[in-house]
Amino acid sequence: MKQRNRTTIYDIARALNLSPSTISRALQHHPLINALTRERVQQLAEEMGYVPNWIASSLRKRRSNIIGLIVPRTSVYFQSTAISGVQHIAHRHGYSIVIGQSEENMEMERELAKTFFSLRVDGLLAVSSMFTPNADYLSPYVKNNIPVVLYDRIPNGFTGHSITGDDFHGGFLATEHLIHHDCKNIMHITGELTCNLYQQRLDGYKAALRKYQIPFNQNNVHVCNLTLETATEIAEEIFSTQVPDGIFTANDTAAIAFIQTAHKLGISIPQQVKVVGYSNDLSSRIVSPSLTTIEQSGYKMGEKAAETLIRLLNNELETESPVNYIFDVELIARNSTAYVKLNTLKEG
Amino acid sequence: MKQRNRTTIYDIARALNLSPSTISRALQHHPLINALTRERVQQLAEEMGYVPNWIASSLRKRRSNIIGLIVPRTSVYFQSTAISGVQHIAHRHGYSIVIGQSEENMEMERELAKTFFSLRVDGLLAVSSMFTPNADYLSPYVKNNIPVVLYDRIPNGFTGHSITGDDFHGGFLATEHLIHHDCKNIMHITGELTCNLYQQRLDGYKAALRKYQIPFNQNNVHVCNLTLETATEIAEEIFSTQVPDGIFTANDTAAIAFIQTAHKLGISIPQQVKVVGYSNDLSSRIVSPSLTTIEQSGYKMGEKAAETLIRLLNNELETESPVNYIFDVELIARNSTAYVKLNTLKEG
Repeated sequence: MKQRNRTTIYDIARALNLSPSTISRALQHHPLINALTRERVQQLAEEMGYVPNWIASSLRKRRSNIIGLIVPRTSVYFQSTAISGVQHIAHRHGYSIVIGQSEENMEMERELAKTFFSLRVDGLLAVSSMFTPNADYLSPYVKNNIPVVLYDRIPNGFTGHSITGDDFHGGFLATEHLIHHDCKNIMHITGELTCNLYQQRLDGYKAALRKYQIPFNQNNVHVCNLTLETATEIAEEIFSTQVPDGIFTANDTAAIAFIQTAHKLGISIPQQVKVVGYSNDLSSRIVSPSLTTIEQSGYKMGEKAAETLIRLLNNELETESPVNYIFDVELIARNSTAYVKLNTLKEG
Repeated sequence: MKQRNRTTIYDIARALNLSPSTISRALQHHPLINALTRERVQQLAEEMGYVPNWIASSLRKRRSNIIGLIVPRTSVYFQSTAISGVQHIAHRHGYSIVIGQSEENMEMERELAKTFFSLRVDGLLAVSSMFTPNADYLSPYVKNNIPVVLYDRIPNGFTGHSITGDDFHGGFLATEHLIHHDCKNIMHITGELTCNLYQQRLDGYKAALRKYQIPFNQNNVHVCNLTLETATEIAEEIFSTQVPDGIFTANDTAAIAFIQTAHKLGISIPQQVKVVGYSNDLSSRIVSPSLTTIEQSGYKMGEKAAETLIRLLNNELETESPVNYIFDVELIARNSTAYVKLNTLKEG
């Protein structure tokens, strides 16, 4: 490997025949350094491609002004809107965000947590993978008293600061909406139940059934990884033996898999089957019929998570009593659950 | 701000009454340290939440095993598939990827480049923002001889390593396909032309018109930021005065804006207007009618970019003769350009 010589203040000092400490002070606008010298130093530093070693400074100041952010997949609509919210607040407060993508892989999540720790981030924001069984991967932070705020998905046993959506209420609203539209045999397609939010959406589904005295049937609950491929397989399997009148999926991707599979098999939505998704992805407005879904305010959740972390960094929050903020959710009714006669559906 | 005391080897040394260098060696499996001591040290290090300071090690070893990746938006389908490709190769070679999202903002892009430089990444992968006029933001890397590989969007004047799609050919294929489907008045909706790939897609569009002796009309080219909102405004404006028979948009999002606007106005696609997008986003299969588009192999492009960077890091490439790899593209024909009689369109 070639030697990579980064320009240091010593190089600048040699070139200008000044002491390294003068260079350092000039670059930091120290009052003892006159304007002419400061300008000469800054100009040469620029020419020589010098960039201050923020790490070294952070070792002295104990601040890197960098926040680490770990998410399962940046491409998921909810995650990407939350990232935008995080960045909005972080930049307003002078923090850079570095993102790590775990790809729903626990080992990668643990590695990323370590990497960010070693990069001496001031704090960590994270959305756990669907399969993360507990909060162990955060132990370097906890043990070293580095602030952590989790949002969206919270692994079991995590007792720190969290920002979540009201997933129980979301599951309830989705199911009640289907019941109000005359559905009696409602399937629920969900993710790993070790993951808080899928368990809570399922609990909401059960509570709605209970309220309307519809017996809960364990066979109507299908757990999967909620990708388009897997949900399509489940849709084909379900439709090969029965056509339920309602389907509530724990994300929009799975709902779209059901809509597309129904379409291929000549099953009409919403006439024969009504479908409700979760997240209000962009794709829920693009699919035909447009998808009824639950809006969960990703952007605001990201903002709130970043705000909470920055308040912790500024010692504006009691770390002993964790913040557990829950965002309300909202049902967005669209054509996939509309009351219509056959062949009269008009997309808007 | 609370004092954050990270556990150091000195803390472990004190606790075990050993020298710091013994601790350091034990943690690095040094042959001079016996197995019992090594185990005691490692166990206590784990208990005390010690994580090796990779930065400090990297200062000695001049390697951080971290690659920085800057992208405009992680949520764009092409970008997210490319990120997966990058991660796949990086992890195979023992590198962590830290991602920065510029949000198409030049200033944020410059800040991120500096942040990653200061974090002493071994190398940088980047997709420039749509508005980046030149490669100046990379100067800390160039001046300090840190390997950089750009992919997808390459700013003017960049003479280093690049991985791109064949955007000229993509623009040509899209336009020729519309011409083959009897379109004569073809609009082109594109992004900022300072950005290489939009200029090249436009050049391909012009070349196809020329080949089929259709006069080029500057009024048929609309430059915008290619978001759903902006493209919808342009679609409304165009459709308020005319209904062109073909539309080629430089991304799928803009194509979907045209399909949805046409739908709202009662203009039928593909009967009255045929539409071709670019990128083969997931949404191109979800929209109705399904969208004819150009596949540009994001995953493979990300893999190739990471491979090239890692070969540079391993001195397996001549840095003097830059790699400029161009991926071939492919047209995916779907229903938005199908030959159909009114009301006989069947989605597949």
